[in-house]
Amino acid sequence: MILFNSDYIEGAHPAILDALSRTNFVQTPGYGEDKYCEEAREIIREHCGNKALGVQFLVGGTQANVTVIDALLRSYQGVISADSGHINVHETGAPEATGHKIIALPSADGRLSLQQIKQCYESHWSDPAHEHTVQPGMVYLSCPAENGLIYTKAELTEISQYCRSNGLYLFVDGARLGYGLQAEGCDITLADLAQLCDAFYIGGTKVGALFGEAVVFSDKEMHRSFRYAIKQHGGMLAKGRLLGIQFAELLRGGTDCLYFKLAKHANSEAMRIRRAFEEKNITMWIPSVTNMQFPALTKEQQKILAEKYLFEVWGKYDENRDIVRFCTSWATRSDAVDELCNDIRKLPQ
Amino acid sequence: MILFNSDYIEGAHPAILDALSRTNFVQTPGYGEDKYCEEAREIIREHCGNKALGVQFLVGGTQANVTVIDALLRSYQGVISADSGHINVHETGAPEATGHKIIALPSADGRLSLQQIKQCYESHWSDPAHEHTVQPGMVYLSCPAENGLIYTKAELTEISQYCRSNGLYLFVDGARLGYGLQAEGCDITLADLAQLCDAFYIGGTKVGALFGEAVVFSDKEMHRSFRYAIKQHGGMLAKGRLLGIQFAELLRGGTDCLYFKLAKHANSEAMRIRRAFEEKNITMWIPSVTNMQFPALTKEQQKILAEKYLFEVWGKYDENRDIVRFCTSWATRSDAVDELCNDIRKLPQ
Amino acid sequence: MILFNSDYIEGAHPAILDALSRTNFVQTPGYGEDKYCEEAREIIREHCGNKALGVQFLVGGTQANVTVIDALLRSYQGVISADSGHINVHETGAPEATGHKIIALPSADGRLSLQQIKQCYESHWSDPAHEHTVQPGMVYLSCPAENGLIYTKAELTEISQYCRSNGLYLFVDGARLGYGLQAEGCDITLADLAQLCDAFYIGGTKVGALFGEAVVFSDKEMHRSFRYAIKQHGGMLAKGRLLGIQFAELLRGGTDCLYFKLAKHANSEAMRIRRAFEEKNITMWIPSVTNMQFPALTKEQQKILAEKYLFEVWGKYDENRDIVRFCTSWATRSDAVDELCNDIRKLPQ
Amino acid sequence: MILFNSDYIEGAHPAILDALSRTNFVQTPGYGEDKYCEEAREIIREHCGNKALGVQFLVGGTQANVTVIDALLRSYQGVISADSGHINVHETGAPEATGHKIIALPSADGRLSLQQIKQCYESHWSDPAHEHTVQPGMVYLSCPAENGLIYTKAELTEISQYCRSNGLYLFVDGARLGYGLQAEGCDITLADLAQLCDAFYIGGTKVGALFGEAVVFSDKEMHRSFRYAIKQHGGMLAKGRLLGIQFAELLRGGTDCLYFKLAKHANSEAMRIRRAFEEKNITMWIPSVTNMQFPALTKEQQKILAEKYLFEVWGKYDENRDIVRFCTSWATRSDAVDELCNDIRKLPQ
Repeated sequence: MILFNSDYIEGAHPAILDALSRTNFVQTPGYGEDKYCEEAREIIREHCGNKALGVQFLVGGTQANVTVIDALLRSYQGVISADSGHINVHETGAPEATGHKIIALPSADGRLSLQQIKQCYESHWSDPAHEHTVQPGMVYLSCPAENGLIYTKAELTEISQYCRSNGLYLFVDGARLGYGLQAEGCDITLADLAQLCDAFYIGGTKVGALFGEAVVFSDKEMHRSFRYAIKQHGGMLAKGRLLGIQFAELLRGGTDCLYFKLAKHANSEAMRIRRAFEEKNITMWIPSVTNMQFPALTKEQQKILAEKYLFEVWGKYDENRDIVRFCTSWATRSDAVDELCNDIRKLPQ
Repeated sequence: MILFNSDYIEGAHPAILDALSRTNFVQTPGYGEDKYCEEAREIIREHCGNKALGVQFLVGGTQANVTVIDALLRSYQGVISADSGHINVHETGAPEATGHKIIALPSADGRLSLQQIKQCYESHWSDPAHEHTVQPGMVYLSCPAENGLIYTKAELTEISQYCRSNGLYLFVDGARLGYGLQAEGCDITLADLAQLCDAFYIGGTKVGALFGEAVVFSDKEMHRSFRYAIKQHGGMLAKGRLLGIQFAELLRGGTDCLYFKLAKHANSEAMRIRRAFEEKNITMWIPSVTNMQFPALTKEQQKILAEKYLFEVWGKYDENRDIVRFCTSWATRSDAVDELCNDIRKLPQ
Repeated sequence: MILFNSDYIEGAHPAILDALSRTNFVQTPGYGEDKYCEEAREIIREHCGNKALGVQFLVGGTQANVTVIDALLRSYQGVISADSGHINVHETGAPEATGHKIIALPSADGRLSLQQIKQCYESHWSDPAHEHTVQPGMVYLSCPAENGLIYTKAELTEISQYCRSNGLYLFVDGARLGYGLQAEGCDITLADLAQLCDAFYIGGTKVGALFGEAVVFSDKEMHRSFRYAIKQHGGMLAKGRLLGIQFAELLRGGTDCLYFKLAKHANSEAMRIRRAFEEKNITMWIPSVTNMQFPALTKEQQKILAEKYLFEVWGKYDENRDIVRFCTSWATRSDAVDELCNDIRKLPQ
Repeated sequence: MILFNSDYIEGAHPAILDALSRTNFVQTPGYGEDKYCEEAREIIREHCGNKALGVQFLVGGTQANVTVIDALLRSYQGVISADSGHINVHETGAPEATGHKIIALPSADGRLSLQQIKQCYESHWSDPAHEHTVQPGMVYLSCPAENGLIYTKAELTEISQYCRSNGLYLFVDGARLGYGLQAEGCDITLADLAQLCDAFYIGGTKVGALFGEAVVFSDKEMHRSFRYAIKQHGGMLAKGRLLGIQFAELLRGGTDCLYFKLAKHANSEAMRIRRAFEEKNITMWIPSVTNMQFPALTKEQQKILAEKYLFEVWGKYDENRDIVRFCTSWATRSDAVDELCNDIRKLPQ
């Protein structure tokens, strides 16, 4: 059985394991105050072109989301998110457990438009009884979104400008950020994100690391407070160096860094899968340019592929077809994709 | 500089790194539902002599504490703890952030007595206005306590019995459990803990793992709910296998397992340090039998040792002396301890 | 200006004020443990035909909702509610502030169907990754719903049965319960609610009291815990007697009690307003049988009525018309309704 | 039986009930946005000599405490309080339920000294691992303290200055403020409080009102946010006018207002009780100058007085004596105090 059901089914890129072994007996302080974390911070600030940025390392995505949300918002504020947003659907109410409501806006493609954000914000403040409803305090976007779509720099810029003019924080969930930034047609860089967002993170878990998310933020209040918030939310890793070592390994080398190479590999394998489906005239639900592809398959087609491959059923497409998700990753082997493409070609209509 | 300031200043035992490398490209499901976690669970149940126990793996201690507390308690219940307890002092209010007050009882040596627990519980329920105060719902102990002392099986048994007769959960923080269980004079086993507690954990971070705490629990409600609580508190590791692989490696082999060997090593090095101080007639604050030792040193003595060694100042002992902490660990080198002992012998009075 | 914009724009029925004056200098214990609260509890148990029910008095509706939700649910559980439910829209995220997500289901008419509840519950448990989403723990209904519609006894019974078979709490928000129970066609009684729900409340604030909601519950765990939850959520009124005195006054006298008389009056005045609109061929958005009526009015019609009356704009009906809300209450004067009906008759089409 | 066990055992001063009756059928908007609340706000600002102050009305003290704490603090901040502080002992963990730890400092007499606050604050920030502990964000004082003692203006001023220089909020719990301000020797005024604190409240419940606490604050962020926080914590009274009407009635008239007269009456009756005990050579635990008096009584003395009077046992004084509390209030009848003093004179030694 070959697994295409997610992008966290293997360990880490061997270079990561090597780095961990190499540094294993060096003695360092804990909690992310070691020289490896410092080096990784510097590398990230270099990527972002801003020496003043705050960078902290967390183990996982839900932790990163909740810590940022709770550190930035006031107790009576909520987060504007697409209804399909990870924080709204797949985190067991973790943001609500810190007291913050998700203000979920409908989204056909997993993304939010400036239009929607505006409408939500303005309808709140124009309501004379606005204090009876949750005050919007932050806009949460994912890049790429839950289904692999990306924002353009123009879109992100206008959302950012709107947020800044209206006292809304802008936070970008980057659990799969590498795949987004390296996607064909993506015109956003780490430096853009650092400039346009109050906080975003560079996801390691799904792009070559054993685990880890690097949270980058410009907000000054957050510099002072974020480490408290990390500890309070159980996210302060005792051997914080493990995160620094990994991110230094992934991001060293500027635009040639391992992180980008791994992401590019996954994307290009994903595009081969997409083309195989398209050549077979199988409809793609969403024109994803990243490492997740969503063909609409009949039950019969699913049954055939399920004999050799694991993939995820994502939802209903129409009467006869389901949307299914095929994921590639930094670890996907090209011969496995060859085999899959071959089997796609043999599918019945 | 040789570091004796904590027990998480290196990476992991090489066998752990080997195991991670060996399994790196095996494809598994995420979130702790893989075969490595299953194996580790079975090994732990074997140690505990109880096939029905629940076992879940978390990354760190604060996370483990908060998740257990919040999963078990009702919203209006609090936790009885020594005032020096980790949850009361060093977790940035993490339990309170989930809504639960710590009912802190004074403790000279870091441990709680049955007497104190009883007095606290009975004074709550005999207060006619008891609903104006937080209802005690759980007793939290650390084994070993913050300063290295352990409980006897008799002490733990009578606390357990009292808790069970009175509807209190008993939860043991085992961040340094290995060092406690392998201490000279400790008559408690993993099987005892599994029988006497509602929940406890086997700390990996400080005893040879890269990170990880294995939470063991018998409470049935918890079986159903604990994985929700983990996810809600941001503790669900995507590549949960990393925890299973480590704990299997540490605990495989019954009483001969690596975990116990590493703990024994650290304890015996710590006892050498203790003896060196005692032979010098330097007072030990607390008769610790585990990997942390607390001599009372003058400023001059501290200054001399600080030239070569890092240790932690723990508090005031008397007018002229501070309590300082020397920590050994699974990674402590015997020649480093030789050197330290030698330098202790040369200290002025 | 005559106000029809809500049902809490006056003080209280004079009998309430008289009762408060009459008892003013009697000395009693605080916090709802006085003889007046005891009397009111007995009267309510009599109405419900169940001597074993728990009854506690709270000041307001949001407080009642949050206290019940947080007292009953586990930390990782959420509440199934219509998306228009008061707890989802108009409580500034109060339930989320206690950690519980609202699982909001779309509802055209403000009510939930068994179908929807079932679908939501089953889709949760059939999801293999269910612990990544909030566990449904309670169904929240309002009676009447936010727009004045009621449930039939048959509907409520089948929802109750489903909840009981599946470990879901059933909680009915009764902020306007009197108006619901006394509506034409309502076949539900207080005794039915006490039997079918785990908790519900009898709203006083909007039906003749100065303030106050009487929470009735059958759940045994709640008996023990609810007063803790009240205090923790800031809802324990020092002079609890004020609530007991009011509810005794409102509910004394069985089916002839003041509470029911006041509700009937408001409903009958509301039906006069409805008929006036209908006779004018003005469309009613929803066939409300309670004290809130929702005609679809043109801007011109609104402008004319707004000269003499205050009412609330509820939303858009179509291109040319808005839904507006007219509220009657226990205090609505019949001559004011005469005048309004007269002015409705003179409206342009 | 005559009750001296608390100061909330009767209803309200008759003038309050009259005012409620007089205004009963006036139609007003809800939620504290009516003309009575506006009037009360103006009266309070007049007392405080500051037209820019924010004033909001809440029903009870726990609610007021929690709402202020949660509205002002960041999620990782806690509140410095005397260990006997109401928020630490008698609110069922309400502040913790909003996520904020109480940093409890030992206090023999219920008050905090600048010394203690300083020591706590400085030891936090001088700890290199400060982010592992709760960040002090606010100082909470009660005036009078739980046992009736007051602060001098000089004490309050130096605490206020320290707080302002160090970014700590200063919040004064004024549940019994009237009794404090009118105590012999008190040199603090409402204007002083308004100038020295970030927030404080004027307690109505215990000083003549049916219920109600008027929260006064100068913090600008709070102006914008406090009404959200009130609603989120279930404290937004639908008929907010009830609070405005009461506070206008109590505070109208400057230094001659009803509120001050009622407080003076209670204090002077309390001093009569104190003198009666002192003349009998019965030790007073604390030299309280307000409406609570704490004699140290033998069991026999208690038994004799308990035949006719209700009072509260507060704690142990020594081997043979308990501290008991006698409370007077705005409603205490002078002939009842005559009778009590008479009976005190007849007590055995």
